[in-house]
Amino acid sequence: MDAKLQPADTATEETLDPADWSGVERIARRLVGDAIVHLRDVRQRPAWREMPRDVQSRFREPLPEDSLPLEAVLAAVTDDVMPYPMGNVHPRFWAWYMGSGNLTGAFADFLAAIQGSNLGGGNHAAALVDLQVVDWCKQMVGFPATASGTLTSGGSVANLIGLTVARNAMADIDIRELGVAAAAQPLRFYGSDQIHSCHRKTVEALGLGNRALRRIATGPDFRIDISALTHAIEEDRASGFRPACIIANARSVNTGALDDLEALADLADEQNLWFHVDGCIGALIAIAPRHRSLVAGLHRADSLALDPHKWLHAPFDVGCCLVKNAAAHRGTFATTPEYLESASRGLASGEWLHEYCLQTSRGFRALKVWMALKEHGVNKFGRLIDQNIDQAHYLARLIEAEPNLSLMATTTINIVCFRYDPGGLDEPALKALNTEIMLQLQEDGLAVLSDTTLRGRHCLRAAIGNHRTRCEDIDLLVAEIVRRGKILSDGS
Amino acid sequence: MDAKLQPADTATEETLDPADWSGVERIARRLVGDAIVHLRDVRQRPAWREMPRDVQSRFREPLPEDSLPLEAVLAAVTDDVMPYPMGNVHPRFWAWYMGSGNLTGAFADFLAAIQGSNLGGGNHAAALVDLQVVDWCKQMVGFPATASGTLTSGGSVANLIGLTVARNAMADIDIRELGVAAAAQPLRFYGSDQIHSCHRKTVEALGLGNRALRRIATGPDFRIDISALTHAIEEDRASGFRPACIIANARSVNTGALDDLEALADLADEQNLWFHVDGCIGALIAIAPRHRSLVAGLHRADSLALDPHKWLHAPFDVGCCLVKNAAAHRGTFATTPEYLESASRGLASGEWLHEYCLQTSRGFRALKVWMALKEHGVNKFGRLIDQNIDQAHYLARLIEAEPNLSLMATTTINIVCFRYDPGGLDEPALKALNTEIMLQLQEDGLAVLSDTTLRGRHCLRAAIGNHRTRCEDIDLLVAEIVRRGKILSDGS
Ligand SMILES: Cc1ncc(COP(=O)(O)O)c(C=O)c1O
Ligand SMILES: Cc1ncc(COP(=O)(O)O)c(C=O)c1O
Repeated sequence: MDAKLQPADTATEETLDPADWSGVERIARRLVGDAIVHLRDVRQRPAWREMPRDVQSRFREPLPEDSLPLEAVLAAVTDDVMPYPMGNVHPRFWAWYMGSGNLTGAFADFLAAIQGSNLGGGNHAAALVDLQVVDWCKQMVGFPATASGTLTSGGSVANLIGLTVARNAMADIDIRELGVAAAAQPLRFYGSDQIHSCHRKTVEALGLGNRALRRIATGPDFRIDISALTHAIEEDRASGFRPACIIANARSVNTGALDDLEALADLADEQNLWFHVDGCIGALIAIAPRHRSLVAGLHRADSLALDPHKWLHAPFDVGCCLVKNAAAHRGTFATTPEYLESASRGLASGEWLHEYCLQTSRGFRALKVWMALKEHGVNKFGRLIDQNIDQAHYLARLIEAEPNLSLMATTTINIVCFRYDPGGLDEPALKALNTEIMLQLQEDGLAVLSDTTLRGRHCLRAAIGNHRTRCEDIDLLVAEIVRRGKILSDGS
Repeated sequence: MDAKLQPADTATEETLDPADWSGVERIARRLVGDAIVHLRDVRQRPAWREMPRDVQSRFREPLPEDSLPLEAVLAAVTDDVMPYPMGNVHPRFWAWYMGSGNLTGAFADFLAAIQGSNLGGGNHAAALVDLQVVDWCKQMVGFPATASGTLTSGGSVANLIGLTVARNAMADIDIRELGVAAAAQPLRFYGSDQIHSCHRKTVEALGLGNRALRRIATGPDFRIDISALTHAIEEDRASGFRPACIIANARSVNTGALDDLEALADLADEQNLWFHVDGCIGALIAIAPRHRSLVAGLHRADSLALDPHKWLHAPFDVGCCLVKNAAAHRGTFATTPEYLESASRGLASGEWLHEYCLQTSRGFRALKVWMALKEHGVNKFGRLIDQNIDQAHYLARLIEAEPNLSLMATTTINIVCFRYDPGGLDEPALKALNTEIMLQLQEDGLAVLSDTTLRGRHCLRAAIGNHRTRCEDIDLLVAEIVRRGKILSDGS
């Protein structure tokens, strides 16, 4: 080679690859063995615990300049990261709403990272796995094969995708080109006062404004009041707005209440509105043999958000948005710039998956869903959903049987709202007492609940979406709450 | 326990956990050993190859109903998924623009999934790792510690986050509440005609309309023409628009051209505009000892998108948006609903990270960045960036020395645009010839390039952002292109 052409320093070429592959293999085998034991013994560890100060302070150290042996990095993870998780992998974690992960999903995340594909699209296996998982999602909720879909970083973004398509499809102008201000009639979206906060983020991000999302009152059962909704739509139409989209709650995060999907689908039909279903919690009930009738009507959605990192227990994060009209979906996001022109052969001849979402590069999050569904089969996931619903009803029955516990909302599915109420305390005192019980349960590593406020009344909330929970865990929860409640209220 | 309270079927309680933990451990040790060998031998495998029909057809099988042993699932991954990747982990993959992953990052994705935390926030170790990685990103690009930031699913969403903050901060109204239509003066954003397609998606999603993003002409060097930009801003102001934001290209995806950041920062100051830097490709040059001056001015951005899954080679996906004004950042996204009220103690006493983005649940994508930075140190990542830039210049020199190859744009950094041109062919014939060369290189598993069109002329494009690339790979590329080009053009 011509000396002038030669780069200065071929001798010093570096790489991130290990110099000693077999050394790394030994380390890795230990790592994976330890991780499996960690997961096996999760029940023996606290559900949550506070980090000591020295651990916390290490997370404030500055950017590392120089190298550290892999063993030392793994030791830092073992000492400082693994012992202090959020806790959702624990059998007695029932806070907010999340899945509890699974070992096969963790293998999948590892293999996805090794295989390394970018799911922006193209002609390669990961892209086909991604499309297959989307197809399986359609099959789970009764969507036609002609629908489109995209895997997202979670349910919030899945809702964002669906509502962006809704906005664009329902506008009276070319909204992509002209923006929302060009519409003669401002768009209006509708959901109940129980919808998740991500919908507010969405209408704000979409430039419609929070005001464009009307929160319709719910009845005593926390379900959207259909006649109030009908009235709001007609009122808006009369005032020059353009009613565009109904957002149904296939289970609200607060209480688990489920809007009447069939009635909402009928109304959307009648009124010519887009029908979006937020199925982040509830859509997968469609696979639960004993409860699927609860979500009848799901398949009538124009767009639907569901969340494999909840009831399919995929490790975070993975959501999915399905859209019945694939052309409207692609028409909302596709841009196809020159350097991404698709080819007739080669890597670029596959479908461009980023034409259906807001990402360009995309992780191979499909693999964790794919492997777990292959291993367990959808029927088992369905039975586990039934099991969680049964456990929630079991908890509700225990609460009803305890004189000092009160149910605060009907347990429709797997969310139980309740509080310790020994009688004679006002609302602030009850809130203080129940908050203290909740915090003690956490701090003692016993169980993790969250709290909420329903129509002004504070309560504890257990959302049982956990494949490790056993009935004995629920017995323990009730016994510990009653015991602590008694000590705290006797002492006060 | 009261029989009435007992659930029907405690005996049949199921879980996704393995029944035989030690059996799974054996399987897992094999899996990880195989994966390491897979990565070790990547150089021996084709950079890309077409999937056989029977493999493709298996990705069209319906939703699995029943269970399959884990070994069988892993065999399917080994046979059908691992051999047909996009190819970006291969040393001779230089298409589009992406990182090539790293083994430690794969361990991290595994451990993150085992640990299982949800990065929506809260008081737990993963949340502190997430915040620490954001801090490290600030340190890499010279942002102050008081800035805020969020890890995202990639650069496109990082840009979306930054531009959402820009839109809301620059509007003359409460845009969250009222929407963009309520603004007296429509907002205008500015970028060059070389900006990435994600910016179009962003202004469309934000409801501003594609029209609100003015594409300013670039000079012969593909850098934004500052006087044309100044003129456009003044013109818009005179016509009643509200100039809001300049989007600088810290390296364009097409040619690697780099806008003059200092000049743009000055202009943004003068004109009172938000200054957003799309640093998805270029921001990390700030850590490269021999080239960091190329991105002088980066720290002057109001918001900045950077992409650890590119030049930090984190497995997909992870991007990062930094915002200098943390209050403006949180003010754009925070909602704080009742059930996420933050507490003084316990799990809910940590920061809510979802208040800074569009996700609610968030994966633990920080860990792969954290572990790799700890292991290798930022200095090594910086040297690897220098190495890639050197390699691109080396390729450019080889091209210049070859009579039948022509450089099609100045190689400013690590992107080389060129074509095989034996003379005497018109544009369509050159396009056909070079496309055929590109496809043959892919189909023979030799190297993966992509193509683009620069000012109407088709060319091949090598983006060298790959820690496995050696100069010998570049020699091979040039030799093979020349050889194939000769055969194809002689034969035609
Ligand atoms: C009803 C509902 N919608 C949307 C979401 C947001 O989903 P994610 O956390 O996956 O973004 C949730 C989360 O709990 C939810 O309960
Ligand atoms: C300049 C630029 N901006 C943004 C992006 C989008 O980044 P991502 O693919 O991580 O979404 C890219 C991707 O190549 C890019 O080159």
